[in-house]
Amino acid sequence: MTADSRDRVDRILDPDSVAIAGASADETKRGYIAMERLVESAYAGEVNPVNPSYEGEILGRTVYPAVSEVPETVDLVYVVTPPDAVADVLADAGRADAAGAVIFSAGFGEAGNEEAERELVRVAEETGIRFIGPNVMGMVNAPADMYLGIDATYAPGEFAVVSQSGNLAMNLGMQSTRARNTGISYLVSIGNEADLTFHELLPHFGADDHTGALLLYAEGMSDGRSFLQAAAEFPDPVVAVRGGRTGAGKSSAASHTASLAGDADVVEAVYDQAGVVTVADFDDTVPVAQALTGLPPLSGRNVAVMTEAGGLATIATDALVEGGLSVPELTEETRSELRELFPYSPNVSNPVDTMVTPRTATLHGDAAEAILSDPNVDGLLICGEYGGYGLTDTDGPDLPADEDTLQAQIDSAERIARLPEEYGKPVVIKSTYTPEESEALATCRDGGIPVYDALRHAPAAFSALAQYGEYLDTADRRTDFVVESDRDPHEAVDRAAGEGRRHLAEYEARDVLADYGVPVAPHRLATAAEEAVAAAAEFEGRVAMKVASPGIQHKTEAGGVSLDVAGEGVRHEYDRLMESARAYDPDATVEGVLVSPMVEEGVEVIVGAVDDAEVGPVMLFGVGGVLVEVLEDVSFGAVPLTEYDARRMIEGIRASEVLAGARGRPGVDREALVDLLLSVSDVVAANPAIAELDLNPVVCHEDGLSVVDASIGLSGSDDGR
Amino acid sequence: MTADSRDRVDRILDPDSVAIAGASADETKRGYIAMERLVESAYAGEVNPVNPSYEGEILGRTVYPAVSEVPETVDLVYVVTPPDAVADVLADAGRADAAGAVIFSAGFGEAGNEEAERELVRVAEETGIRFIGPNVMGMVNAPADMYLGIDATYAPGEFAVVSQSGNLAMNLGMQSTRARNTGISYLVSIGNEADLTFHELLPHFGADDHTGALLLYAEGMSDGRSFLQAAAEFPDPVVAVRGGRTGAGKSSAASHTASLAGDADVVEAVYDQAGVVTVADFDDTVPVAQALTGLPPLSGRNVAVMTEAGGLATIATDALVEGGLSVPELTEETRSELRELFPYSPNVSNPVDTMVTPRTATLHGDAAEAILSDPNVDGLLICGEYGGYGLTDTDGPDLPADEDTLQAQIDSAERIARLPEEYGKPVVIKSTYTPEESEALATCRDGGIPVYDALRHAPAAFSALAQYGEYLDTADRRTDFVVESDRDPHEAVDRAAGEGRRHLAEYEARDVLADYGVPVAPHRLATAAEEAVAAAAEFEGRVAMKVASPGIQHKTEAGGVSLDVAGEGVRHEYDRLMESARAYDPDATVEGVLVSPMVEEGVEVIVGAVDDAEVGPVMLFGVGGVLVEVLEDVSFGAVPLTEYDARRMIEGIRASEVLAGARGRPGVDREALVDLLLSVSDVVAANPAIAELDLNPVVCHEDGLSVVDASIGLSGSDDGR
Repeated sequence: MTADSRDRVDRILDPDSVAIAGASADETKRGYIAMERLVESAYAGEVNPVNPSYEGEILGRTVYPAVSEVPETVDLVYVVTPPDAVADVLADAGRADAAGAVIFSAGFGEAGNEEAERELVRVAEETGIRFIGPNVMGMVNAPADMYLGIDATYAPGEFAVVSQSGNLAMNLGMQSTRARNTGISYLVSIGNEADLTFHELLPHFGADDHTGALLLYAEGMSDGRSFLQAAAEFPDPVVAVRGGRTGAGKSSAASHTASLAGDADVVEAVYDQAGVVTVADFDDTVPVAQALTGLPPLSGRNVAVMTEAGGLATIATDALVEGGLSVPELTEETRSELRELFPYSPNVSNPVDTMVTPRTATLHGDAAEAILSDPNVDGLLICGEYGGYGLTDTDGPDLPADEDTLQAQIDSAERIARLPEEYGKPVVIKSTYTPEESEALATCRDGGIPVYDALRHAPAAFSALAQYGEYLDTADRRTDFVVESDRDPHEAVDRAAGEGRRHLAEYEARDVLADYGVPVAPHRLATAAEEAVAAAAEFEGRVAMKVASPGIQHKTEAGGVSLDVAGEGVRHEYDRLMESARAYDPDATVEGVLVSPMVEEGVEVIVGAVDDAEVGPVMLFGVGGVLVEVLEDVSFGAVPLTEYDARRMIEGIRASEVLAGARGRPGVDREALVDLLLSVSDVVAANPAIAELDLNPVVCHEDGLSVVDASIGLSGSDDGR
Repeated sequence: MTADSRDRVDRILDPDSVAIAGASADETKRGYIAMERLVESAYAGEVNPVNPSYEGEILGRTVYPAVSEVPETVDLVYVVTPPDAVADVLADAGRADAAGAVIFSAGFGEAGNEEAERELVRVAEETGIRFIGPNVMGMVNAPADMYLGIDATYAPGEFAVVSQSGNLAMNLGMQSTRARNTGISYLVSIGNEADLTFHELLPHFGADDHTGALLLYAEGMSDGRSFLQAAAEFPDPVVAVRGGRTGAGKSSAASHTASLAGDADVVEAVYDQAGVVTVADFDDTVPVAQALTGLPPLSGRNVAVMTEAGGLATIATDALVEGGLSVPELTEETRSELRELFPYSPNVSNPVDTMVTPRTATLHGDAAEAILSDPNVDGLLICGEYGGYGLTDTDGPDLPADEDTLQAQIDSAERIARLPEEYGKPVVIKSTYTPEESEALATCRDGGIPVYDALRHAPAAFSALAQYGEYLDTADRRTDFVVESDRDPHEAVDRAAGEGRRHLAEYEARDVLADYGVPVAPHRLATAAEEAVAAAAEFEGRVAMKVASPGIQHKTEAGGVSLDVAGEGVRHEYDRLMESARAYDPDATVEGVLVSPMVEEGVEVIVGAVDDAEVGPVMLFGVGGVLVEVLEDVSFGAVPLTEYDARRMIEGIRASEVLAGARGRPGVDREALVDLLLSVSDVVAANPAIAELDLNPVVCHEDGLSVVDASIGLSGSDDGR
């Protein structure tokens, strides 16, 4: 991103002067409503109505016929004209050195008018102006009280919201406002993304003092790879909701990798690599952002639960464990401390049951501190009646509601509010009394502790705190999302791509891989039965034979595979395979038969790569076999992989136990697997023409591994990404 | 349950007269607070204070020294005395023909005083009195305004709450009260369940006019099998939350089945067989119960979404699909109708985007009806601003707030509220405007349509409606939870159990299974090398050889298995296996070597049974292999299985695709698998001494199957359950 563009984005998001192109004196029109909102608000910048068919004033401001006629320099043009006027407005504004535009007007790409949208992009390229949209809901800079196209009013706060859905942007704005102690810095409906895209806005929010987190909603990005880079450089937490996770359906591509990678999991996985926390449930977005901005991250996954009833303790523990967290034992020392505080408690280990007694409110601070000082504990969830002790007229616990209890609870809260910073460990509260908002709860919120009204937000928050903590700890060992390799593209790949071929033959793929150091099993391409026999003799044992034809991808289906062949059988099988292949596809060029030694049994894994339409080249790893294909237990990582990324991928499958040698079976050579992933990543990084790559199966032994089958698909051109 | 007990339960839950044993004049004591609540409430029954060390009156009621001194017959004694007085109070009340007691007093089994608790049970058995508790939080009969031990006040309504956690019972009471148009009929904290347990309360709620659903929280039941029977007979929906799902840890039992069944999944699966809907998230309990009581069930899993913004449509679709529902295409006819209603909508298929226009509020009723009349649609989710059109002073859509819009929306709501009954299809609303509670939303609620404030309740509700609908449709094809068989117990099982053995030898297990018609692979027990050779010759091919010793369960570990042996190898292997076994365990009785033919390859599955501590004998099914053992993809069903149950189990695993022949591989003989499950169920039903049974693997072919390995574990006595 150029310095000029960066400067323009700053001026678009934080303008000193705004022009409303399409301003109107008709009070029912958007061009009036937008003017009115700005003029009546505390927005301190200039507001200039622009409309060529109107003279005089609107709301006391002189109307200009064009942006170029406004006497001062305009930073931002908010365009609400009919769609066919937009290009001219933009061109005029661009020539007048306006920094940019937010184009509300619709009727472009989203309505099938691609050409009209391309015209806007051409104008921007010619004049240098940048724009958000078209087809946006609006934009808000809350600290500046600048509302464009948005009717609501949001509490100013730390969250910068950027969304492909205007409605969900407003939803997040409203949720941030309803949740206490939070609000928004910016709210940007990004519309059709014809010009400015997600990643170009991030540097502004990163440098902005008001913003403490980025909340985004996306259904797919036009340049996901650049977003990943920008997100990895972003100084604050990024919380994402992905829409359309289930709608895309599977790709019908030929390789296993492409079909396994054909859903949204791949994007979520590489978001994780860039430190972006993806929430599965839209309603968790704001609660998770509250936790990430107000609290230190989790340094592990061990969470303690403090509550005053056994049932709550049980369901809170279930919710945390099902959310991927642990609820560990406390040390003997902590338990003694808690036993002294709560002598009648049925359980002072974790989950800690404080029971409701007249003194519970007083003791909560002591108890929370005892728990957080425990080395086994990374964070604390307080849940139950907390915040309600001493309140009157509520459906509260069976306690005398009184001033002393109320004060004791406030004292406890003041102490608890200081604990996260003091111990570097997060505390989250789920209270039955959020509707009442007691002073104790307000005190905790003021200290950065989120207070939730639903238990389910707690595991989402702790899981996000753990993920973000792990990201911060390991960011320097992760990929930077820049695809580069110090190896050259392979001549065979470039040649095949140049010829417009979509696949390498298997023997070609094997040769390419071997040239980058991938340990493919040895093989010979036999073009006559005699050669096959000779190759088998060379391998001194039983061999696998596969027909070699670039045109036949599904070799088994074509009857083109024979396993465990030896001696005279090799000659016979050579002839049979060639015959089958010709019968299967008379037009296919059959180059011969690939002969390789049979590999001894081991754990079969799949290693692949695919050039994802959204985030570029990614690697895939899984344990092979029909069950994993059906259950889709795979992990992903953006190319180029670092060693750390490779290890995370290997550990990241649900069935990773299998690799360690589950149920008495031998394990795999993990270092060889790491090397394999890194080599394949290098192959993909060095060869932009590779669209998909599939090593399936790779047979892993306790010592070493063998790539038994390899395929490489091409994008058809060497500028395929 | 006897008629007397049934009558006593009715009188306990709906008493005409109550005695408070432990009544007090001290206003800070429970014995006073309980009196005060009853006396000052609208409760119409008699309230009699009982306290032997107090004379005179409390709150204007004569104090009696004992329940037996109360002039009229007492239905219910609420016991708040110190624990050591409880047994005498109970004995006296029992002799005075009180129907039962609710024992608040604690300090029994939960505090380690098992003997004191057993004493209460003895008193109950002697005098016929029944009791709930001890150690309960309290009990509420809301329509009668009878509150015992509960300080809060709940809205009267349809939900009967029974809970092992008093605190969570109160939580459900409060949530039912906060959710509009709902409330509770009963609230029972069931305490230690020393006498009355869950299942004994169900007939009362089933017959009760006020109750429309049962909400329960349980961490484990003392007689889960009886609960299942009672639940299957219950006329209304039962919604359950299971606590402690993650805490129990895995059983360390020897068989695969026992270790796979060692968690809460088995209970949830058999709850499902009894029509009980288990919610994963406690906060979904009341929303799900609202849907089940107010709406017709789903007849399929096809749900339509209607909203006014693309982003919302997308995330609602994601949430439904991830919740196991489908969002199908609408018919051409419906789309035409919707296109006429919403000419500018970007999408009138499913999800339907109505867009916000001034007429949206007017058209919602027409649109909802058009969608529900579509044969592709089983139910409808309306989400977004619905309920907020026309409201003023809200963060609402960019619409003029006016009386006409408000009225149009109310008109639409009246129509929508009638649709579920008219079309027999459920409608659920998720509105941004629940805090405002517009008249339109109130109208929908009055029609039984739940209005949620969080999107995630919608998939939970539809999923429950689908599950309950399927249950109602198929209830007559499901098991009735009565374990019986027309086959006799097997003599070999009884003999082994009588001898105190914990396992049958494999050949014994095979014989037992074969006698009940299970197709075990043929086998010969060879007690000398010659016999092994002869057996192998008889099987005309390669054989599997396994050491036969009841003392050696882990045959592979003992070096006691040889596969794919033929010819002279058989003699050699016989000697080697015998030697290995003796070396592995010199004390084990080694009876010889089991010889059976090698089975050709196929899909390996596991079929097992285990006598679950909570719900009795259950069957297990899964696809075999290390991955499924690691990923635990298994299904369960209560013994005795019906054919319908068996088919559901087979279809119920995530990897069921594999059985149909995934990725070009051959499928399995499903009818043979159904027969196998039914035969094994019969073996278990006929032999109460069987504690666990493991057929692993069963190799399934396109035609038939072979049980390759079988083990049977015994409970050590024939009254093991």
